[in-house]
Amino acid sequence: MTFTRFIDLSGPGIERLDEDTVAVLPVGAIEQHGPHLPVATDYYMAEAVAEGAARAAGEACDITLLPGLAYTKSDEHAWSAGTLWLSARTLLAVLDDIGRALAVGPVRRLAFLNAHGGNSALLGVALRELRTRHGLRTFLLHASLPADQGGTSPASELGLGVHGGLNETAAMLHLHPDLVEMAQARRSVPEHLTEYEHIGFGKPVSFGWTSDDFGTGNGVIGDPTGATPELGRKLVDAAIATNAAALRECARFRPDRPTTS
Amino acid sequence: MTFTRFIDLSGPGIERLDEDTVAVLPVGAIEQHGPHLPVATDYYMAEAVAEGAARAAGEACDITLLPGLAYTKSDEHAWSAGTLWLSARTLLAVLDDIGRALAVGPVRRLAFLNAHGGNSALLGVALRELRTRHGLRTFLLHASLPADQGGTSPASELGLGVHGGLNETAAMLHLHPDLVEMAQARRSVPEHLTEYEHIGFGKPVSFGWTSDDFGTGNGVIGDPTGATPELGRKLVDAAIATNAAALRECARFRPDRPTTS
Amino acid sequence: MTFTRFIDLSGPGIERLDEDTVAVLPVGAIEQHGPHLPVATDYYMAEAVAEGAARAAGEACDITLLPGLAYTKSDEHAWSAGTLWLSARTLLAVLDDIGRALAVGPVRRLAFLNAHGGNSALLGVALRELRTRHGLRTFLLHASLPADQGGTSPASELGLGVHGGLNETAAMLHLHPDLVEMAQARRSVPEHLTEYEHIGFGKPVSFGWTSDDFGTGNGVIGDPTGATPELGRKLVDAAIATNAAALRECARFRPDRPTTS
Amino acid sequence: MTFTRFIDLSGPGIERLDEDTVAVLPVGAIEQHGPHLPVATDYYMAEAVAEGAARAAGEACDITLLPGLAYTKSDEHAWSAGTLWLSARTLLAVLDDIGRALAVGPVRRLAFLNAHGGNSALLGVALRELRTRHGLRTFLLHASLPADQGGTSPASELGLGVHGGLNETAAMLHLHPDLVEMAQARRSVPEHLTEYEHIGFGKPVSFGWTSDDFGTGNGVIGDPTGATPELGRKLVDAAIATNAAALRECARFRPDRPTTS
Amino acid sequence: MTFTRFIDLSGPGIERLDEDTVAVLPVGAIEQHGPHLPVATDYYMAEAVAEGAARAAGEACDITLLPGLAYTKSDEHAWSAGTLWLSARTLLAVLDDIGRALAVGPVRRLAFLNAHGGNSALLGVALRELRTRHGLRTFLLHASLPADQGGTSPASELGLGVHGGLNETAAMLHLHPDLVEMAQARRSVPEHLTEYEHIGFGKPVSFGWTSDDFGTGNGVIGDPTGATPELGRKLVDAAIATNAAALRECARFRPDRPTTS
Amino acid sequence: MTFTRFIDLSGPGIERLDEDTVAVLPVGAIEQHGPHLPVATDYYMAEAVAEGAARAAGEACDITLLPGLAYTKSDEHAWSAGTLWLSARTLLAVLDDIGRALAVGPVRRLAFLNAHGGNSALLGVALRELRTRHGLRTFLLHASLPADQGGTSPASELGLGVHGGLNETAAMLHLHPDLVEMAQARRSVPEHLTEYEHIGFGKPVSFGWTSDDFGTGNGVIGDPTGATPELGRKLVDAAIATNAAALRECARFRPDRPTTS
Repeated sequence: MTFTRFIDLSGPGIERLDEDTVAVLPVGAIEQHGPHLPVATDYYMAEAVAEGAARAAGEACDITLLPGLAYTKSDEHAWSAGTLWLSARTLLAVLDDIGRALAVGPVRRLAFLNAHGGNSALLGVALRELRTRHGLRTFLLHASLPADQGGTSPASELGLGVHGGLNETAAMLHLHPDLVEMAQARRSVPEHLTEYEHIGFGKPVSFGWTSDDFGTGNGVIGDPTGATPELGRKLVDAAIATNAAALRECARFRPDRPTTS
Repeated sequence: MTFTRFIDLSGPGIERLDEDTVAVLPVGAIEQHGPHLPVATDYYMAEAVAEGAARAAGEACDITLLPGLAYTKSDEHAWSAGTLWLSARTLLAVLDDIGRALAVGPVRRLAFLNAHGGNSALLGVALRELRTRHGLRTFLLHASLPADQGGTSPASELGLGVHGGLNETAAMLHLHPDLVEMAQARRSVPEHLTEYEHIGFGKPVSFGWTSDDFGTGNGVIGDPTGATPELGRKLVDAAIATNAAALRECARFRPDRPTTS
Repeated sequence: MTFTRFIDLSGPGIERLDEDTVAVLPVGAIEQHGPHLPVATDYYMAEAVAEGAARAAGEACDITLLPGLAYTKSDEHAWSAGTLWLSARTLLAVLDDIGRALAVGPVRRLAFLNAHGGNSALLGVALRELRTRHGLRTFLLHASLPADQGGTSPASELGLGVHGGLNETAAMLHLHPDLVEMAQARRSVPEHLTEYEHIGFGKPVSFGWTSDDFGTGNGVIGDPTGATPELGRKLVDAAIATNAAALRECARFRPDRPTTS
Repeated sequence: MTFTRFIDLSGPGIERLDEDTVAVLPVGAIEQHGPHLPVATDYYMAEAVAEGAARAAGEACDITLLPGLAYTKSDEHAWSAGTLWLSARTLLAVLDDIGRALAVGPVRRLAFLNAHGGNSALLGVALRELRTRHGLRTFLLHASLPADQGGTSPASELGLGVHGGLNETAAMLHLHPDLVEMAQARRSVPEHLTEYEHIGFGKPVSFGWTSDDFGTGNGVIGDPTGATPELGRKLVDAAIATNAAALRECARFRPDRPTTS
Repeated sequence: MTFTRFIDLSGPGIERLDEDTVAVLPVGAIEQHGPHLPVATDYYMAEAVAEGAARAAGEACDITLLPGLAYTKSDEHAWSAGTLWLSARTLLAVLDDIGRALAVGPVRRLAFLNAHGGNSALLGVALRELRTRHGLRTFLLHASLPADQGGTSPASELGLGVHGGLNETAAMLHLHPDLVEMAQARRSVPEHLTEYEHIGFGKPVSFGWTSDDFGTGNGVIGDPTGATPELGRKLVDAAIATNAAALRECARFRPDRPTTS
Repeated sequence: MTFTRFIDLSGPGIERLDEDTVAVLPVGAIEQHGPHLPVATDYYMAEAVAEGAARAAGEACDITLLPGLAYTKSDEHAWSAGTLWLSARTLLAVLDDIGRALAVGPVRRLAFLNAHGGNSALLGVALRELRTRHGLRTFLLHASLPADQGGTSPASELGLGVHGGLNETAAMLHLHPDLVEMAQARRSVPEHLTEYEHIGFGKPVSFGWTSDDFGTGNGVIGDPTGATPELGRKLVDAAIATNAAALRECARFRPDRPTTS
């Protein structure tokens, strides 16, 4: 039962991994997060949670950590300087190429650990393609679920804290406090979205939005003002624990029969 | 306030629609649904719910119904005869082309009304691309949510009824009873999936699966045996009512400011 | 000897089709047809002729009717609201994907029944690709040949009736009279094209044109003013009869040897 | 009124061409033509007819001859050594790139002079794309029409001489007698195709074929045995004369109004 | 005059960079490097040299360091487990997307700092594409030149040390000694390549090779046995110094006029 | 030991080539070369050197000459009328298609003989792809190396003669004197590039440039004024001799073992 960094192994060392080893691919993003957070917020979150969860899970099963993806799909922030993003087609090709190459060796389980809500849909597409094209068992884990994908958002955000809000800011205050400028943090909650019953973040009807669609001016959708490092630590620790448990399941997941058989 | 079929209008007739008209695109699928249901199950469901909801909504706002997509993304059923599917790249190109062309005229709101869970992720990608590339306000509505996307699945299915199970079979008994062979209906529930806490349909960790991954033999994932036309009618009527209300919101949705301003 | 709708069969039902079954794919279009006809003109024509011919042929051989393609290649009308079209690459990908998926099951014969002249060239490309890539026997049938592809055009149109003219208008008066606004019908024949000996519709040199190239103003190329439902019925019935006979040949076509051997 | 070779001009020389200059692109092929003809048969034919016609037309209008395409779309002969071909997507991209680049300069008229029937459909697609994407007036001329595209085929071939038959062999005996091995010429006519009324070369229903589909064994579809250089000269001279006249029309073609206005 | 990490800036922070800031993109690789080196060898080298050079240059001009690319083009090692690579098309798309997005903000200079010889050709293509498509001034720097691209290879390698040989091994002994297994290092020099005058690494005729083409068995092409950390330090320090000087030139490079004007 | 023109062989004739036959593909370009040279300069050079070298080598081994590529990658001259170019993706597809098709027959060695420096990087990518995808032994030869790729440039050009300068002009005075307008030849040397130590043609740091980046006005980068046919003859003859010797090596190149084993 071991944790390894995939890239620190030699070719023959990788041959010694096996079909129950779970390869973990952190999936971040580089995109504007308002004036108070660095553009790497999602990337740092993906790396921190992935490494923490992989190390913890590695005590009970075989986990190998891949280099994370920094450049992913952030078209909803394409209007802003600092957003470096791949088109859906490019990112799907990147994931497909990685899956194809990984399948040359013994590893057969690949878990995306995603920290950017804007990637979730495309990763959902890739989950299935890598399964059918390359025979990999694929999984999608979340460093934290945004409010529009089943996650929670505190009352001050009216459930609308999907970008640069309380939770993300708190996590960064814990992980990289030097990169957070709380003096620039402003509440930017598009409260009028609560007027709709069907359409909205986390509501039954999703919609195509960009982060400058809401009339809030600075690219933030949420309320970072109350963020603290203590909350951040709590959120990050919980994400690591949850994902470690999930990775342990990934290592033993068999869809075709009871695990006891 | 009118309902129109887009394709029954002339070119000049389409010029008279306006930017608040909602174009509704039914999104079905052609894929194996076990031995008791036709491969068109999702397509019929998409068409029925889309037309019902569009007509109902058309009493309160301007709705124009587009021809539905029969051939969509069903790679999880690619192993079976009768599954006619487009790759993710092809379907994304189809949706992009439709959006690009629609945007030549006055319509600026486009709602996908999807009846196949396997399309949801890709439609999520398209939502944003049509928004950023063609300036369309885009929406994703569901004819019925499968159990792995927030929908419900009855107790007999242990929450695992995602394909060819109770609800889909009931809906078809209501819509096209002549096409259902209840004598062929068998319960095929991969009960062992309940052993997992994190991974599974509707659980936090999604996974890449095909419908022949579960050792159930006939491509069904669910329990169709108790389906009745009464249940089907109830489900379809509810889907129509919900989606009609949602479409009315789509017609007045303004993300950038309160609707009263 | 049967006619079936492909999508009304179950997966196992499709397994019972065989290699001599002809799958018929209606290929329509959604594109401006002048102020007097609906944009679905070609789609309705494809569906009507395909279903009529498939049913008639199904008395003598096995025919299975696929859902028609509404969105096809109409770049020559891209300037007009209401034209919803796929690029050549997208449509080729759609056809390739359908062929690939169909070939998973037993069917080995696929007939495109096309009602839009603008699709003919691309369908010609697809004919060969589906033959070489997927081992399908492929055929291209025409609901009606436009004047620039070997069809006839009445004297009043000087052989130039390729879009929204006499024949198409008559067919629609027969099939969907409620959708035709004869009061809007105007003769729009680019008579100056007759000045050319080599270049032109149906002449040896074809040319790249769009329907707003001819200075006629309303997107029509032809003279719909004399159209009658009687002429339409005659044309549609003839198209059905001809295509039914052609489909029967498709079912027994063997390029490699005499049919009696 | 001049004939030029495009590639012999300098950049500034090309700037002095004008919008009525017709650029002529010979389109050949490299593909098996049976045991008696070189694989370049279509390429030589395209070059000879294009140059002859361009020079002749150049006495009456401005013509500039482009380097011919040797590698085109020959998937129907892909089974044979010596067939060097581009996929439909690649060739379409090549034509699109050439059109895009040509449109940077003053030339606005582009005529494909095609000698390979297998290219006709794709060139038909390109005609329109280069018109709509790059604003070029595009034309498709034929060095000789094959029997399945409106051309003639002599009695000995039963109208089936589409590849390596009488006409092509004769033309090569005239153009490059040293490259023809008449001792290897054999009649290979799939006579059983005449059993079909609807399907076949030059009949209303086209079909997807490869040149090894017909049970004739050597890749020839036709009867080269009676070919003579005299017939070849007659055919080539006629093709040059016809195409020269057509190119003169291309130089003055105006689809939007009478030429006298 | 500053060094920044691009991803540690906020969106507004990135707006404050300017057109003379040089963005540095480390380009590594993940590929087998024989039994004695980790698959990340090129990635570590790219990161170390890029950061060192960027910090040093940042004392004299504005440099912003981008996250490095770990997954690049390693098709010559595709046969081996542990090689995770992107196709040429995918990597070109990644680079194009990054360039497109970067150009939304103020930065106009982009330097690739490459440590994998197998990327050089593709980066050469990208240099020009990002220049012409996105208006960026682009540069290609090398962490170390392999022997087949103008670099040096010691006598023991006969000029053939292109992969996993003396220099790479030494550099890793300096940078990550814990990841090197010198006990596994073996000399694998395809000496027979010296028989050729024209073809070979660093000779006028380059050739398409994979790392299992040379009969040496373990994927190494070179002689790592004499590597020392001292040599590694010398090589890495020199690479940093040279690239720092080169980056300073990148910041002031003006191809259109003397720098003093 | 023979020289053949590939396209003058029949299909069966090509079957008689063998795995040691070297197919030679001349790779030219059509691009502005200043006011004094034709846009075909590189194409003529590629054809002349390829044919000369192939014929000479054909006395000692089996060489088959393919039709040259006239349309290649010239994006650095895309601003000028007369530059007809393919995108990197298109040209890569063309080369891949040719390699795929060639590999259907017996030939297993393919040598690109390139005369346009702007193609070198992409051909480098193709070298490897055709090796790994189609099992071809591939080689890249140069008709003449430009000054930025290891070639020489005379003193009057300060090492900067990369386009339309002394050597290219001299070669054309020898090959096609009628196409050279020496009266238009002007010295256009961007002398300020010598101010840079690291960046520049033939220097360690390459950069993304277009031929209108240098403030010289006419697209030339070099000094053609002293060109003579004598120098041209000397250059061309030397290129032929060198490439003939290189082709002989291509015919016997075995990377996996000594040639004597």
